[in-house]
Formats: sequence, structure tokens, C-alpha cells
Amino acid sequence: MEKGYFTTEDSAEVVASRNVHANDARLRDCMGVLVKHLHAAVKEMNLTQDEWMKGIAFLTQTGQICDDWRQEFILLSDVLGVSMLVDALDNAKPQGASEGTVLGPFHVTGAPELAMGADICLDKKGEPMLVRGRILDIDGNPIANAKLDVWQANDEGFYDVQQKGIQPDYNLRGVFKTGPDGQYWFRAVKPKYYPIPHDGTVGKLLQALGRHPYRPAHLHYIIEADGYQRLVTHIFDPDDPYIHSDAVFGVKESLMADFKLIEDPERQRDAGFDGPYYDVEHDFVLAPA
Amino acid sequence: MEKGYFTTEDSAEVVASRNVHANDARLRDCMGVLVKHLHAAVKEMNLTQDEWMKGIAFLTQTGQICDDWRQEFILLSDVLGVSMLVDALDNAKPQGASEGTVLGPFHVTGAPELAMGADICLDKKGEPMLVRGRILDIDGNPIANAKLDVWQANDEGFYDVQQKGIQPDYNLRGVFKTGPDGQYWFRAVKPKYYPIPHDGTVGKLLQALGRHPYRPAHLHYIIEADGYQRLVTHIFDPDDPYIHSDAVFGVKESLMADFKLIEDPERQRDAGFDGPYYDVEHDFVLAPA
Repeated sequence: MEKGYFTTEDSAEVVASRNVHANDARLRDCMGVLVKHLHAAVKEMNLTQDEWMKGIAFLTQTGQICDDWRQEFILLSDVLGVSMLVDALDNAKPQGASEGTVLGPFHVTGAPELAMGADICLDKKGEPMLVRGRILDIDGNPIANAKLDVWQANDEGFYDVQQKGIQPDYNLRGVFKTGPDGQYWFRAVKPKYYPIPHDGTVGKLLQALGRHPYRPAHLHYIIEADGYQRLVTHIFDPDDPYIHSDAVFGVKESLMADFKLIEDPERQRDAGFDGPYYDVEHDFVLAPA
Repeated sequence: MEKGYFTTEDSAEVVASRNVHANDARLRDCMGVLVKHLHAAVKEMNLTQDEWMKGIAFLTQTGQICDDWRQEFILLSDVLGVSMLVDALDNAKPQGASEGTVLGPFHVTGAPELAMGADICLDKKGEPMLVRGRILDIDGNPIANAKLDVWQANDEGFYDVQQKGIQPDYNLRGVFKTGPDGQYWFRAVKPKYYPIPHDGTVGKLLQALGRHPYRPAHLHYIIEADGYQRLVTHIFDPDDPYIHSDAVFGVKESLMADFKLIEDPERQRDAGFDGPYYDVEHDFVLAPA
């Protein structure tokens, strides 16, 4: 190693030793860790040259599928659980606060700010749903002026941005602000499971691994309030067929919400519906900043 | 884990557990190993979301630089020592046989078969060199009918394929076959160190890591003979300024050759030179098939 020559035994140390003149200590340290684990993986797999070349071709094609509208490397990170892991490490919440999960690729800025109770489903397609609950601090006190940015797929499993011209712009998106009681409530339609894009390299990988590309039905939230940590999360339907096998590993036990079908006509009238609807009650607890 | 939900602690196991239905057991096992080490690296780095996004952008740009003539992911594998590691694992040679090293991107098929003693330097530019030695089996016996495919950069550090129209086609390339004595000899010019392509993402990475992009001067060989393992290797000039810091980690102690400057006019005449030349003597030992 003193001469900088490579041997199989100390391969990672030799490579890392070249980085001593890096200006950026964090980059140097990260490269050392990456090289150590990458070499360990290659040795543990006892990788052949043909397999290595298949890996090179896979990474190349993954990069070449990417464009302004598609990020296949994020998708790869998602299906390998890396996105969720980074989210967990970088956004860890204290005990008692709501947990976060992945942002996903379908958030858009500029969704309209709506009055509590508004229906974010602009095309009225799907099974009606009332979503409600409270934004609380860690001691259970309501948080006023919390901003909820909400978005979801429609009942066919598509976001508005995936169906430009078919769904109205900003369909199933809205921004709400809580009052002094910390309460929120809005109308929408029951979301449906959907596949992540699976016509690229990541789709082929999932197929080769015997994995499906589906995410269980969910609603997305970004919740912000002065003095509190930003919360990026979902709520999930625990009865979804893919709830135990989310293709991107976004599900957590604490993110389950009960989607209760309300068949009582009196409750339907009280809630402003003229037939059965799903009632989804879920409180969010924000961690202090 | 039984429900397939993700936690930071057992993240890699949860991801790997999804692959139980893979048709290809080798792919399944490799993905398990890759995911295990990838997650361990992310945890050890305590990677932030911003850093993760930089990594995604780096991989994406690396894929997008690739085309029919350029393979930036192979270059990345090279500078991280992965190519050399795979070569070492997949082409390990028995004790006593010559060691291999990376093939590199500049081999071309179809170089002319030449008589022993031919000069492979077609444009006569550079310092004259005589390269000679024997192809031996592991017991020291000469191997007849061994095929040597030889190529090298010129004295400015460029291969013919990098300077189409400047260097003649097949400049500094040749194929030779040994006779019963196992001897080989040919004329060329002393090669020079050169940078790997460093105007892309890999070049930027090297710069950020405080690393130079140079490979020390070397000659490439592919040596094949019936009944023996194929040997892909280089010989290096131990006096090269980059001999201890090859950008792609290709140098091994056993691959050093002595580049002796011959100043004796009699030896120059005997070898067919009319002035000083470099004498490079190196034997290669092939492992049995």
C-alpha cells in the first residue's frame, strides 16, 4: 500500500488513500465509505466481468432514460429503499411526533389555497371522501395557522400532472390553513393504488426480481407551521391490496388511517353528502423546530 | 419486518425480502448483497437529502455523457478501483504465472499480424525502443505459437484511435506469433503517461478529490496460446512520474519492466538502430487452461 499499488486485499484502502488532498473533507469521507462498501459488495458477490458489464449497461441506460420529466435514478433509489432510508436519517422525528415518508415525484407548487371543507376533486370522479383531523403540538395542543399542502392520485391511480388535458389542472390538490382549533377538513375522492413508471430499466429490474411496481393508495401531505419542523408524509389505506408491499417502501405502521364507509343517511346529510362517503380522520403531531 | 414495513434498523433486510420470487437466484443474491452494503454506506455516511440529490444528479449526468464512443460509467468504475477489483477476482492467476491488469478502452481488433522484429511505430515519432522477451509456461518452457496482441499510446500520450487523421491507422499496434523458442521482439517508441478523459463527471470528481487523471506510461498485451489461460496485461515504466498513482489503479509490482537506454554504438548497430534506443526485456508466463 505504501507505493499506492492495488491488491485485492487492501483495494478499498488504496483507493481511499488517494483522496487525502481533497478540499472537501465531507466528500473525502463519503467517498471513503462508499468505496469501502462498494468493494466489499464486489468481493462478497465475487462479481464476474460479464456481470460487471451488465451493471455498467444498466446504469448507463438508467441515466439515458432521464429527462426533464422523468428521473429513473430517483426511481431506482426508491425501489431499493435508499430514498426512504435517507428520509428516515435526515428527517428523524422525536418520540410522539408524526412520522414522515417520501415526498414522491408528483408534488407541484402553486396549488390553490382553499377554505376548509372545500372539495379538491374538480371532476367529481370517484367515491366521495371526507378527510379531517387536527394539527397538534407534541403536548396535544392545537396549532393555529398550520399550512397543509395536500395532493393525491385520482380513483384510477393517476395524478393530474400525469393526465394533462384529461384531469383538470390542480385536480386533487389544495392548500389549507388551520384556525385556532387546529382543525382541518376537506373533501376528496378515495385514492387508488397505482404503479410507479415501469417501462424503463427500473421496471425491468423489478420484473426480474419478481416484484410488482405498485404503491398502495395514499394521500400526500406537507405540513408547515412557524416554530415547528416541516412534516412531509402520507396517510395510507390499511385495506389496500399492496399495503404490505409498497414498491418504494413508504408505508409505516403509524401512517395508517381508517377509511370508514359511512352508510347512515343522517351522517351523510350532516357532512354534506347525498350518499355513502368515506370518513378519514387523522391527527398530525408536529415536532418543535 | 413481518408486514414488510420499512424501519431504519432492518431496512436492507426488508428490501431484500421482496426478492424471494426472483427467477434468477444469482440476481436475487447479488441484489441482496448490493442493498446490504448500499444501506450500510448510507447509514455510515448519515447521508442528507441534499447530498443524496447531488448523488442522483451525478449518476444521471454520468449516464448522459455516455455514447457509442465514450463510457463514463466504466471510467467511474476505473477510478474507484472497481474495474481492477473485478479483474483481479475474475482473472486470478496461479502462483508463478504473470499477473493481469485492466484491458482499457483502446484495444481494437484487426491489427495487422507482423513478422518478429517489425516496427509498430508507423510515423517514426518518438524515442526508439526494442521490446523483447519470451512466452513461457509455468515450468519455464517456451510456448510456441503464442499470439501477442500489442498496443500502446504514442510519445504524446495518445492512441491512434484518439487521433484519427493525425496518426496512421493501426499506429503502435501489432500481432505477433512466437516460434518454437517462445521468443518475441518488436520495435516501437517509448510510451508516455497520459490523462484519462477528464472533461466529464469523472474528471470533476477526481478534481474535487484532489486526484490527477494520469496513467503512467505502459504497453498493453493480450497473450493467447492453445492450452493456456488468456492473459490481458500491461508492462509499466517504473521511472514514470505517475507510477505510484495510476488514476485507474492498474499498476502491480510484477508488471514493471526495465526501460534501459542503450548508448553503446555497437549494441545500437547490432539491434538495427542508428542511435540510442530503449531496450525493454520482459518475459510472460502463461497459466495452464
